[in-house]
Amino acid sequence: MSMKRRIGILTSGGDCPGLNAAIRGVARASYEMFDCEIIGIHDGYRGLIEGDYSLMNRSQFSGILTLGGTILGTSRTPFRDMQVIGEDKVDKVGAMKKTYRDLKLDCLVTLGGNGTHKTANLLSEEGLNVIGLPKTIDNDIYGTDFTFGFHTAIDIATEVIDRIHTTAASHGRVMCIEIMGNKAGWLTLYSGVAGGADVILIPEIPYKIEKVADIVEARARNNKGFTIIAVAEGAMSKEDAKMKKKDRETRRASEHYSASGEVARQLREMLGVEARSVVPGHIQRGGTPSAYDRVLSSQFGVHAAELIRDEIYGVSVALRGNSIVHNPLKEIAGIPKLVPEDHQMVTIAKHMGISFGIG
Amino acid sequence: MSMKRRIGILTSGGDCPGLNAAIRGVARASYEMFDCEIIGIHDGYRGLIEGDYSLMNRSQFSGILTLGGTILGTSRTPFRDMQVIGEDKVDKVGAMKKTYRDLKLDCLVTLGGNGTHKTANLLSEEGLNVIGLPKTIDNDIYGTDFTFGFHTAIDIATEVIDRIHTTAASHGRVMCIEIMGNKAGWLTLYSGVAGGADVILIPEIPYKIEKVADIVEARARNNKGFTIIAVAEGAMSKEDAKMKKKDRETRRASEHYSASGEVARQLREMLGVEARSVVPGHIQRGGTPSAYDRVLSSQFGVHAAELIRDEIYGVSVALRGNSIVHNPLKEIAGIPKLVPEDHQMVTIAKHMGISFGIG
Amino acid sequence: MSMKRRIGILTSGGDCPGLNAAIRGVARASYEMFDCEIIGIHDGYRGLIEGDYSLMNRSQFSGILTLGGTILGTSRTPFRDMQVIGEDKVDKVGAMKKTYRDLKLDCLVTLGGNGTHKTANLLSEEGLNVIGLPKTIDNDIYGTDFTFGFHTAIDIATEVIDRIHTTAASHGRVMCIEIMGNKAGWLTLYSGVAGGADVILIPEIPYKIEKVADIVEARARNNKGFTIIAVAEGAMSKEDAKMKKKDRETRRASEHYSASGEVARQLREMLGVEARSVVPGHIQRGGTPSAYDRVLSSQFGVHAAELIRDEIYGVSVALRGNSIVHNPLKEIAGIPKLVPEDHQMVTIAKHMGISFGIG
Amino acid sequence: MSMKRRIGILTSGGDCPGLNAAIRGVARASYEMFDCEIIGIHDGYRGLIEGDYSLMNRSQFSGILTLGGTILGTSRTPFRDMQVIGEDKVDKVGAMKKTYRDLKLDCLVTLGGNGTHKTANLLSEEGLNVIGLPKTIDNDIYGTDFTFGFHTAIDIATEVIDRIHTTAASHGRVMCIEIMGNKAGWLTLYSGVAGGADVILIPEIPYKIEKVADIVEARARNNKGFTIIAVAEGAMSKEDAKMKKKDRETRRASEHYSASGEVARQLREMLGVEARSVVPGHIQRGGTPSAYDRVLSSQFGVHAAELIRDEIYGVSVALRGNSIVHNPLKEIAGIPKLVPEDHQMVTIAKHMGISFGIG
Repeated sequence: MSMKRRIGILTSGGDCPGLNAAIRGVARASYEMFDCEIIGIHDGYRGLIEGDYSLMNRSQFSGILTLGGTILGTSRTPFRDMQVIGEDKVDKVGAMKKTYRDLKLDCLVTLGGNGTHKTANLLSEEGLNVIGLPKTIDNDIYGTDFTFGFHTAIDIATEVIDRIHTTAASHGRVMCIEIMGNKAGWLTLYSGVAGGADVILIPEIPYKIEKVADIVEARARNNKGFTIIAVAEGAMSKEDAKMKKKDRETRRASEHYSASGEVARQLREMLGVEARSVVPGHIQRGGTPSAYDRVLSSQFGVHAAELIRDEIYGVSVALRGNSIVHNPLKEIAGIPKLVPEDHQMVTIAKHMGISFGIG
Repeated sequence: MSMKRRIGILTSGGDCPGLNAAIRGVARASYEMFDCEIIGIHDGYRGLIEGDYSLMNRSQFSGILTLGGTILGTSRTPFRDMQVIGEDKVDKVGAMKKTYRDLKLDCLVTLGGNGTHKTANLLSEEGLNVIGLPKTIDNDIYGTDFTFGFHTAIDIATEVIDRIHTTAASHGRVMCIEIMGNKAGWLTLYSGVAGGADVILIPEIPYKIEKVADIVEARARNNKGFTIIAVAEGAMSKEDAKMKKKDRETRRASEHYSASGEVARQLREMLGVEARSVVPGHIQRGGTPSAYDRVLSSQFGVHAAELIRDEIYGVSVALRGNSIVHNPLKEIAGIPKLVPEDHQMVTIAKHMGISFGIG
Repeated sequence: MSMKRRIGILTSGGDCPGLNAAIRGVARASYEMFDCEIIGIHDGYRGLIEGDYSLMNRSQFSGILTLGGTILGTSRTPFRDMQVIGEDKVDKVGAMKKTYRDLKLDCLVTLGGNGTHKTANLLSEEGLNVIGLPKTIDNDIYGTDFTFGFHTAIDIATEVIDRIHTTAASHGRVMCIEIMGNKAGWLTLYSGVAGGADVILIPEIPYKIEKVADIVEARARNNKGFTIIAVAEGAMSKEDAKMKKKDRETRRASEHYSASGEVARQLREMLGVEARSVVPGHIQRGGTPSAYDRVLSSQFGVHAAELIRDEIYGVSVALRGNSIVHNPLKEIAGIPKLVPEDHQMVTIAKHMGISFGIG
Repeated sequence: MSMKRRIGILTSGGDCPGLNAAIRGVARASYEMFDCEIIGIHDGYRGLIEGDYSLMNRSQFSGILTLGGTILGTSRTPFRDMQVIGEDKVDKVGAMKKTYRDLKLDCLVTLGGNGTHKTANLLSEEGLNVIGLPKTIDNDIYGTDFTFGFHTAIDIATEVIDRIHTTAASHGRVMCIEIMGNKAGWLTLYSGVAGGADVILIPEIPYKIEKVADIVEARARNNKGFTIIAVAEGAMSKEDAKMKKKDRETRRASEHYSASGEVARQLREMLGVEARSVVPGHIQRGGTPSAYDRVLSSQFGVHAAELIRDEIYGVSVALRGNSIVHNPLKEIAGIPKLVPEDHQMVTIAKHMGISFGIG
């Protein structure tokens, strides 16, 4: 390969541990394997639309493996509602294509979640050479066993549960800990098991508050004066699940609504117990990536460079078992991966006596 | 000393890292220095009132140095309002004295905060031999440089700020992080400096929101698109500070009020920026004590045993400089220690360019 | 199932994070799914041979999820050299069978590494109902993608590399960090990638010291005054690899030999650089399990209980992709799992420019 | 003050957590309080001698609060033996003075340990305006209660002891953990108490191995099958202490000597127990500073700037109780601070039953 490749790279969507490690993987492997120039595009697709970018040099990818955040900056995806094909969208796509062409890019690498992948697929359909890398603490991207960022978030959420455990036990309280994950229960399921939660409530398995109350009471009868409830931010009761989607989302969007606050409030009312809600929030998505995520991010980044070397585009990198593979963008873009009700982890959790607030 | 000493020990008030380390210190040093029996009183003063206790054996104090929470259980102080001398109080004091006498205790060691110390002093005035140990993550106990639990909480709050920093920087947001400390600003002051906060708001220095807004705007002008604001849970604006105490507390007691939420809301309204509030809450008070707090708790516990050996009662153990000392209970009980406006840490923070939302 | 099952459980071989979490998983799932009694056998096979055990009660499995070590105690496997079928061995096997029969066990669950599995298989062949759980920080057990303990050790080793990185960079030194793993390179490979090592030396890929020296010199030419070398405790040069196995092992058994010390010494001699060796040793195998290992240990433990419920014996639990499965003991017992030279992680590391001291 | 101050700053001696936080403190407070230019001198006194430096800009001090190592680089002190006044020394001092004059510095800020302070004092005596900041994980600088770096090292050493504890207990072993501290026992004393060590051996209190053996045996009699021994790298037996200093140091300088290895070897020989040595080494001095050290480093740095503002030179910044103060360089430079035998921490440790291998 005598030709010099020009690679554009951007990070889009929410902050997530491992972004810099993945960027470093793409860059180090590209410099190692072929002649290349890397263009850093600023603040996600915004920079691609507005032509805001800079030519990177090799030393800028040094020392960033452990660094939280993204050295490229990020912004939310440009198309909130991909269904609406309006003039604005056409303009934005046009602007992105123009920047790609002006920069004479051979390839665009996009790091992001479901929204980012939708746009990546759109650009791929428009003829650009695009490779996606699945990042999100929510682990809700179809086609990959795990996204990077997810395991760091499990570590943080588990430490939160550990610390709350102490207070719950010393005071004999019901503690409802709200864990991120958007509309998926993965993060709550894993950190709930790791933290030894007594009850795990996830969006995919709507709960009955009476069943949760039963657990609290059964524990009290067995001289366990406290209960730890891991509540996904998207968790919903069976009643909520039956509401019209729009009504439910309106209610949830209200400033003071929280899934864990709701559970705590109902338990206080039903049982008269001291039930409290803790919402650790954004600490679950920031800071240094864990060893697991540094390895996975590096692997994803290097595989992207291998794909560029082999001129394979229109794909997203993925983990399958212990192998790093890739899926066609069009087969996975925008398809959310939810927890199946009969997932082995759910069964295993039930077999340990963890309640999902049902049956 | 041929006589066998009978020592009662209880933990009262909120959960705090280092309680078990301090209990272990009292026990190990007592067993080492003199003949003794140790009675564990359950759930704080509740156990003393109701005669709920158990004779401990030496092995029960083994392996608890690193354990969060309290092996003795805890409960809130029995007298919410010490000013009201009612029948209830007389009864409770009588019950506590009776248990003390029935158990033939030579001494009662109480681990707790300001409320606990008030009751300890009351029992001391009633003729019981009492020794207090100052524990609280708030560091608001008069007469000691530091309480145990405080430094562990600094570590946790600092890690929270570190993780939020990443998100703030990647997204260009104003993040208002609410830090515990009751009515004192110690925890916010120390963790704010350790976490590199741009603004620190504490109850002792009421802020003007306009001054906070000025900082956010000045940073934006210098191409720093984000601002980290450490907000004490007791922080208040100058307007709040002028309100009648009762009105202020009523407002603050409302379910959805939070000091950090208030700051974020006002900045959103004034500047139109994306300002968010994070309330890590109870994670600041649970879990394994840090090395610092294991040392301090051990020192406090051992000094209590030294005092028992020397039959010095009616005192509370304290840290002064690098020495472990003791103060008469009646001189310190219930006097809150607040951050003086001209404290050296405040001056140093100001000299680094950290704003307190004033002047 | 009306019958009460009697389950014996033991932990054997080296200390490893997650042992208690796995014990808890077996116990909680067994109590949840069927009527049972659990017998804790003390200090591994020693307890089985000597009849040293105790009947456990349910509360003993509470609060141990996060606890390092093993509540059952452990000892080295009773048969150092399984090839020697001597009288001693026959006696020991007989003693173990006798205890199993005396206790009227329905099943024996053994938690351990390769040596433990060999003995488990032996007992299985003798007609006992045995289920193995693969634990080791070395990840060298055939038939499972990962063993529990491995990921906690990666976290610790990575933190060690992170901290050494600072010193190496500030002083411009070559730092050789010795990482555990017995005769396998898994732990060094994963933590080397996670810690950003420049060179990774593992037993499966014998190195040429000249190639390592080339890297140090090349970095110096590029103004990188330091080099981080992750050295597996079992790493060996091509010359070492050619020695007779017995001679090599004799040399390595000498008190002051260390693989990393050897590398550092040779680099000092060849290049005159300041090269140092760090041997963190046992800290890589102790303490609280990580969230990953708590989940994996729990899954393994629960699956063992599911197997008992279904009366499936003579197997070892395993992770395959994301599924918890089981392998026949006779197909996996004692077969070490080494890093294949063309493993995808090796290729990926090479593509990032990490040297393995070869070619 | 209309005049612009020119400030030189350098870091000298071993890597230590908090160096960058202290540099940031000096810079932020200087920029905040007066008009200034800051010159970063590279690699300690080497840069001052050779005229290797660069003019810093404000943004270079941003984002370094949590960064391990030193952005300025470091080197060992230029005068290994300060007693020898040879030509070389005169030349080096002359070169340093020349660089200071050429740069038209108003002040030189030096961050380092005892060796660094000696040179700082020498330069002060030669008429330069010098301010010292005491950094070292050894805490062995006279005149300050604590140096920065010390508390981070306590945290790391304590975590090491925690992890080793698990293995010791599970296997019933004697574990000798070697802790840094040069010729002072501070780090071992504090981390030994924090980690719950059974025996603490420090240079200031020479031990008798028979007394250590007594503890191991007494614990075995009480069914504690393991013993944790925290051994300072400078610990010595009474016999060692009586040797001629030169002979002792020659022996200790031999490649394979280690204080902890010596203790383990003797216990194996005397008692036939399984006693092992662990030498975590350099991990105790690298990486991100703890919250405590970030605060202390910042305070020290800001106070240096306050001294520059007030034109107070020839001093070293110090912590006394809770106040940041300063001492004349000539009164403290090069005086090592050792643990007094009757230090309150030693007494407290003894009262908890911790043995120092004596009496």
